[in-house]
Parts: sequence; C-alpha cells; structure tokens
Amino acid sequence: MKPLSLLFAVAAASSAIAQPIVSPEVHSDRRVTFRIKAENAKAVQLNCEGVPSAPMVKDDAGVWSFTTEPLEPDIYAYSFNVDGVRTIDLNNPLLKYNLLNTESQVHVPGPSTLPWEINDVPRGTVHRHFYRSAIAGDEREFLVYTPPGYDASARKRYPILYLLHGYSDDATAWTSVGCAHIILDNLIARGKARPMIVVMPLGYGTMDIVKAGWSRVRDPQLWRRNVDQFAGTLLTEVMPQVERRYRVATGRESLAIAGLSMGGWQSLTVGLNHLDRFAWIGAFSSGGVSTNLSEHFPNLNPRANAKIRLLWVGCGKEDWLLGSNQRLSEWLQSREIRHTYVESPGGHSFRVWRRYLAEFLPRLFRE
Amino acid sequence: MKPLSLLFAVAAASSAIAQPIVSPEVHSDRRVTFRIKAENAKAVQLNCEGVPSAPMVKDDAGVWSFTTEPLEPDIYAYSFNVDGVRTIDLNNPLLKYNLLNTESQVHVPGPSTLPWEINDVPRGTVHRHFYRSAIAGDEREFLVYTPPGYDASARKRYPILYLLHGYSDDATAWTSVGCAHIILDNLIARGKARPMIVVMPLGYGTMDIVKAGWSRVRDPQLWRRNVDQFAGTLLTEVMPQVERRYRVATGRESLAIAGLSMGGWQSLTVGLNHLDRFAWIGAFSSGGVSTNLSEHFPNLNPRANAKIRLLWVGCGKEDWLLGSNQRLSEWLQSREIRHTYVESPGGHSFRVWRRYLAEFLPRLFRE
Repeated sequence: MKPLSLLFAVAAASSAIAQPIVSPEVHSDRRVTFRIKAENAKAVQLNCEGVPSAPMVKDDAGVWSFTTEPLEPDIYAYSFNVDGVRTIDLNNPLLKYNLLNTESQVHVPGPSTLPWEINDVPRGTVHRHFYRSAIAGDEREFLVYTPPGYDASARKRYPILYLLHGYSDDATAWTSVGCAHIILDNLIARGKARPMIVVMPLGYGTMDIVKAGWSRVRDPQLWRRNVDQFAGTLLTEVMPQVERRYRVATGRESLAIAGLSMGGWQSLTVGLNHLDRFAWIGAFSSGGVSTNLSEHFPNLNPRANAKIRLLWVGCGKEDWLLGSNQRLSEWLQSREIRHTYVESPGGHSFRVWRRYLAEFLPRLFRE
Repeated sequence: MKPLSLLFAVAAASSAIAQPIVSPEVHSDRRVTFRIKAENAKAVQLNCEGVPSAPMVKDDAGVWSFTTEPLEPDIYAYSFNVDGVRTIDLNNPLLKYNLLNTESQVHVPGPSTLPWEINDVPRGTVHRHFYRSAIAGDEREFLVYTPPGYDASARKRYPILYLLHGYSDDATAWTSVGCAHIILDNLIARGKARPMIVVMPLGYGTMDIVKAGWSRVRDPQLWRRNVDQFAGTLLTEVMPQVERRYRVATGRESLAIAGLSMGGWQSLTVGLNHLDRFAWIGAFSSGGVSTNLSEHFPNLNPRANAKIRLLWVGCGKEDWLLGSNQRLSEWLQSREIRHTYVESPGGHSFRVWRRYLAEFLPRLFRE
C-alpha cells in the first residue's frame, strides 16, 4: 500500500486537508450544517438565503459551524463573512457562479415533482457556441438547449424560446444556477411543456456595464446603450446563427422571449417592439424598467393584443424591484394591453425564477 | 437620472462595493497586481503559480496588494491566504473550478500564436450531454467538442479523441481550464491538427473517491475500483452514445485516448489494454501509476508496436510525479514498447497540460 501513498503524499500535503471539512451537510430532517475552518478568526457569519443572518460558533479545532432549522426543499445561495471578508465555501463544489458576486449553493432535496430535481427521464443537451460579436466587439458565447430526441438530420422543427439572464450573470446562469435544462427535461417528460429549443445568449450589449460593477448600472446612458446593443446582438448575430444551425420552426407563433431582472426588461424591450417576430413574452422580476414607458414602447396599443399570445409579468413580493414591476403592470393595463401579472413569495432570487420558468414554459406554443 | 438610481440603489448597497477592487490587474509590461480587501486581517499572502510565495501589503483603505515581476504570457492559478483561511479572488470572474480546490486564474496575454489565445478563426462547439450511469449509479455528463463546420447531416466522418481530466477536476476542466476547444480551433485553423471530435467524459468510476478528498486517493482498492469502473463507463456507456449521436469514423486508426494525471493513467490503462480499439495514446503527468506494471498490462509485448501509432508520455521536471513517470517510461522500454517520452519545464499544472495538448494534437490521425 505504501507506493501509492507516496505518489500522492505531496498532493495530500499541499491540499492540507487531513480531515476534510464537510460543508454543507444536509441532514435527513432538512436542517443544514455549514462549516468553515478559520482558526484565527474573531467572528464568522453565515449569509444564506432563507436563513436569518447567523453568527457561527467555533470549536476546539478552529472549525466554525452553524446549523439551520429545517429548510424547505430548494436551492439556496450562501456565503461566509470571516472577520469582514466575504468568502465562498471552498469545501463545497456547488457554486453559484456570477461575474460580480460568486456564491456557494446548497441543495436541500425534495420530492421528484419539484421542477429542478433531476429525474430518470430522457435528457436534453446543452450546446455552447462561440463567436465574435461585431456589435459588442468581443468574443462571446450563447448556449442552446435541444430537447430529448432532437435530431439535426430529421425533418421535425421546433419552436424557440430565447431566455435571458440577469445583470452580473453570464450565459451559463440559466442552466448552472437556474436549472433550465433540468426543468425542461422534467416538463417535457411529463407532457407539460412542448419540446422546444431554448437559446441562452450572453445578455450584455457592452461588457463596459459589467466591468465597472454595480455602481455604473445607475448610469442611464450606459444602461440604454447596453440594452439597445444587446437587442442588436440578439436580432442580427445570435438569431441568424440559431436559425442556420438548428431545425427551428419559422414564424412568430414559434418564437418566445423571456428573461429575469435585466433580462426581463430586455425581453419586454425586444419582444413588445418586435411583435412581428415574437408572440410569447415573459418578464421575471424585471430590472432597470424605464420610467418613461410610453416613450420606450411608442407603438404599443390595444391592436397588439391580437398579436400577443402571452405576456407574462411576475415579481417576488419581497423583491426591491416590486414597485417598478407594479408600475409596469399598471401602465400595460392603462394601455389596455392584456397580460398576466403575478406576485409571488420571495425576493430577487433564482428561488423565484426557477419557479417562474416552470410556470411559464407550459403556456408556450399552445394552439 | 434619479429613478434608475433608485431602482438599483438596494442592489448597489447590498453588494457594498462603492469602489470596486480591481484584481488582478495585468499591466502592459506583464507585471500583475493582485488585491483583496481585508480591513481586519493581520497577514495576507498570495499563492500564485510561477510567483514566489509572497506576503501582501495593506493600504489605508484596508486593501492588501502585491505586484509581481513581469510574468511570461500564460494562465496562472492563484488564491489568497487571509489569516490562515484560503480564499479565492472574488473580484475576479476567471475561476479555476475544481471539485476539491477551486482557485482563481489570471491570464497574462501573449502572442496570438500561443495555443490558448482566442483568435478570430472559425470556432467549434462544445456539447454537454447528460445521462444516468448504471455503473457509477449517478447522473453525470460528458462534453463533446465538434470542430468548425461540423454538420450532423453531412456525410463526412471524424476521428475521435477521448480526453480525460485529472483527480478533483470535473468534465468541464479540459475546456474551462485547459482551453482544449480554443487550442483545437487554433490548430485546425492553422492546418496543424486534423478536424476531430473530442469527447471529455467525467473521469470517475465512483464518486466515492472524490467525496472523501485527497486522503482516500491513497487507498489502492478504491483507486483500482475507480479506474476499472471508469473504463466501464467509457467503453460501455459513453462511447456507444457518442457513436450513435455523432458522425464518427470507425476503426482503431480513428480513435485516440489521452489524459492528464489520473486521466493519464486511465488513458494508458484503457488504451494499452484495448489496442483493438485505440491506436493513439497520450499520458500527461500520469498519476496513480501502478507499482506493478507487468501485472497491470499482462498482454503488452513488442507485437503491440504494430498496433500503436503513437504512445506519448510526458511529465514536468518539477512535478512530484516525475519519478513514477520515469519508471513508467523505463518499464515500456524494458518491454520494447516504442513510445515518445518528454520531460519539460513545469510542475503538476495546466500550464504544462495546455502545452502538451498543443504538442499532442498535431500528431494524431496522420497517415
């Protein structure tokens, strides 16, 4: 047994984990214990969605821990604060990757009927395409979900949903955090959603808006340029590539656009201003909603109702953006634009958006 | 300007970054400045590949920084140690994701001829497939790179490289850290590599070997079970799916297998024991190499030379696994098995493996 030990001895020493820390530990009663080793720290705090902000307690080995009450089955984002420094849980491979604010995640498993639980059903595929954007002036990517059984050489053609992420996410967020591919697999297997292609582009018209962080999001000119240029990348760069490479159905009745936060506002901007192309629109917890909606949607009037098959607007009741989403719905109503408006429990979180996606998908592409 | 400010005010406040920390900052002379805010910390250290371990210095705002000497163009992994707690650089979205040891990365750009630099060339696509493994008893994935111009409905058929990651990596490592898709795009565009399909499966026969961390890697029975079961998942689960879904050339002359560290040893194990299926084999910095090679490769004799089109073995001179790779090469020599053996500068690092891949690919599938 010794030789193999020797081969890895240096590695084991360099990773310096004799006794690996188990974190998070999800107990059978759905309590969760979080742990982090920080021998010299004075105060360590857990910041976890759905859990009151909690100081952790240190043991003799320098491991800080905190155990929650039983949590509802869900996927929760969290991080630690160690003496004022935010850190993720490096003992946990489940990340919530983000361009500005990567966190860790804990999955509290629940019934297989929860839309994001992986089931033994036929699985779709996620394709990552790379291209140079002339509009944004950079190398970027878009992801494409194809449903189970999709066959590029067959005759069948599929409707498309363009699904947009939020500010500070990247193109992988809807799958890696939002579980979009899992939700689709489950709904399709249960006959609740039509098999469709889902395209998830990078949602920035200019990366400038990300580089300077949250402070620059407040700059209305930069924000407007970001949204306008994004529309350009979508309509003139991404959509033609998708239509060339995939077996897509043609016509506005086969095209949907939806997104979360920044992506919700982009879906409204692109969708409602291009009703010749999109018949199905979803806006989840929209962020950066214009304060002058009449100027932003100059041509929107009740005749649009004949074209809009679905306009679905939702926001969490604890979301800081609730007010602007209420204002949006009221404005649509004042213009006599038919839409579904939903307020649900929750904040500005993927806990809300996974549920919204599962609620939205079954309504798409129906006769 | 005020209303938009208000919409995002809470977000800006919650992310608590008035002045975003820029880290890493790559200067035009290729020095790199790393920064982390830790007002209460007593000592902060930078651990970065290719940089002598370095204490950082705190400024009045509580920001610790360190600036390197000019670094050679490359991609370097790094992390911080804050009062004894390892942390990644949360101001930097470029992660080196790993199941046991996620780090940050800094890209010091270089000439466009470096294999991992993105160029304005036709780009391939990376496909992510999900399936249930009967052998491993879990849900897992494999990634597939298809070259530029790949057309599922065309007649052309492509050779396949199975490319295996190392212990503690996941199936995304060869692309997200190893830049395999970029290296392939570049080499194909320059006519230096044949267009090929590259399959990157999850490399564990059992996730047990990951769950308990580096300490359990030393357990030879678990290690053996991991390698054997991995071979099963590859040969009986992944390969049939790839052959069914992609336009693959048939026959051993069109099949290669290569990998790094654990994946190097798996490539030798699968390849040399299945010369009826693979003609091209690469082993980069192999880890966990058996101490009884004659028992592990019972049927290997000089008649194999007629079947082996390429057996490429390489290891970094500063790699702690150099000894076992030398022993491997000596054993092959003693058995009169023709092979290429390379020792190169560098340690157990993707800095070495990106270069090995770029050296290995041009030799594959030649007449």
